[in-house]
Amino acid sequence: MKLPVLVAAVTLVVSGAAHAQFQKPEDAVKYRQGAFTVLGAHFSRIGAMVQGRVPFDAKVAQDNAAIVATLSKLPWAGFTPDTEKIKSRTKPEAWMEMDKVRAGADKMMKAVADLEAATRTGNLDAVKKTFGEAAATCKACHDAYRE
Amino acid sequence: MKLPVLVAAVTLVVSGAAHAQFQKPEDAVKYRQGAFTVLGAHFSRIGAMVQGRVPFDAKVAQDNAAIVATLSKLPWAGFTPDTEKIKSRTKPEAWMEMDKVRAGADKMMKAVADLEAATRTGNLDAVKKTFGEAAATCKACHDAYRE
Repeated sequence: MKLPVLVAAVTLVVSGAAHAQFQKPEDAVKYRQGAFTVLGAHFSRIGAMVQGRVPFDAKVAQDNAAIVATLSKLPWAGFTPDTEKIKSRTKPEAWMEMDKVRAGADKMMKAVADLEAATRTGNLDAVKKTFGEAAATCKACHDAYRE
Repeated sequence: MKLPVLVAAVTLVVSGAAHAQFQKPEDAVKYRQGAFTVLGAHFSRIGAMVQGRVPFDAKVAQDNAAIVATLSKLPWAGFTPDTEKIKSRTKPEAWMEMDKVRAGADKMMKAVADLEAATRTGNLDAVKKTFGEAAATCKACHDAYRE
């Protein structure tokens, strides 16, 4: 099998699987919103330490970062084409620029992985730096694609 | 410090931390509902393989079970006392029997850990058995405490 054919076949399988993951489009919306909610809650707990509202506890930061890293990979599967017409905070622009959304998601996952690595060092300065970089990737997409 | 005093102190710290995790009770409800939604979606993907609706793929089962195991630990923090009066599918009985809810949650987390271990063996029969046991722990609580 030549490479373009293989890529096409793999893409078909992956999107087929993604599609089959949700029984109806409303489930996909609920899923991605749920994933973002849980992600945001645990990201905020690291934020509270970074901003000094809560004393820094390396173990707590690490536990939360591990949850954030797991969750960061999930919501994207919920942006199935059949959810475009369902009311949510996703702006129409997101559907027109899904390649940019995906690029933003990749940046976010990378930044969150860096944050998780920083929490494992137990160094607050490293956590602050990578938290700020991760937060910037959230904000970029929210500004462009979220009502 | 004697044991009962120590336990009381630890409980205070833990519930204090849990309370501070959410800015308002609505956030706690949204958080626990989001966690259950994501948990359920990934549990169902293992279910589809167990029931033969989707071909068994050990790697996919393992990936989903790892997400389920992470998520299984989360929703309980969202059952804060100040959410009792907020409309949700949680029955009043849950608040009157929170010790039983917690015992049910412990059983579920244990069953999900067993399921994850089974997916790592790649043995479909072991996955089927532990999936059924985990599903039973979900159902027990849903029947008793969910509208």
